[in-house]
Amino acid sequence: MEETLTQAVPTSGFIDQVSWNSDGLVPAIAQDFKSGRVLMMAWMNRESLALTASEGYAVYWSRSRKGLWRKGESSGFLQKIREIRLDCDGDTVLLMVEQEGGIACHTGRSSCFYNLLQDGEWRVSQPVLQDPKAIYK
Amino acid sequence: MEETLTQAVPTSGFIDQVSWNSDGLVPAIAQDFKSGRVLMMAWMNRESLALTASEGYAVYWSRSRKGLWRKGESSGFLQKIREIRLDCDGDTVLLMVEQEGGIACHTGRSSCFYNLLQDGEWRVSQPVLQDPKAIYK
Repeated sequence: MEETLTQAVPTSGFIDQVSWNSDGLVPAIAQDFKSGRVLMMAWMNRESLALTASEGYAVYWSRSRKGLWRKGESSGFLQKIREIRLDCDGDTVLLMVEQEGGIACHTGRSSCFYNLLQDGEWRVSQPVLQDPKAIYK
Repeated sequence: MEETLTQAVPTSGFIDQVSWNSDGLVPAIAQDFKSGRVLMMAWMNRESLALTASEGYAVYWSRSRKGLWRKGESSGFLQKIREIRLDCDGDTVLLMVEQEGGIACHTGRSSCFYNLLQDGEWRVSQPVLQDPKAIYK
């Protein structure tokens, strides 16, 4: 399946203009289009960026699984793309998304950035909206 | 100077709880506390995160210069820290900042993410607020 996809996605100009790192990846930040909340940071390779643009839903590259990661493929919490942005030196992507289900984090929270530094300690500052056991059945 | 700083910053719990990569770095996203705009992404090492927390202004690690980078040291556009957040797996930092001067990007724009993908091309979508020649004299 991944081989088929690799062949199906043509290399196009906007992909080549990204400054891919030595592993062929760039960090991609996902931000909620409505609330402005930064939801998560993951990685993309050329193929995942091309698919994100063509399919209209966020597709990352899982470094641990070494494979394409369609965000929400297990949870159902897809990220619908509203904008794809690139920074000044071309090495970081920003996705403006509609987060389906309102949950981006595998812990069942709206955002992955729920640890807040207070008095020298990371403290959990966002509620669990849905039990992960109910999300990943 | 850097050696002095390295010795002066103690290793503390919240620093050790970050999942530093094999280069001893983590990506750090800066977001404007008021507007919610994502301003930039840079890198931090242990020392820069410790200094960011203790000084209350963003300090990154410049991979190109291999040194601490006090954001705004040349431009004057400091980033005052309002919150420091860490994501669920501890390998990405999110800074909520007050961007002094309203300009985070070295191109004189409010944000580094001014390239918007439209019709298969990256198009500049944010104005230059101040000529970089006037910023970096």
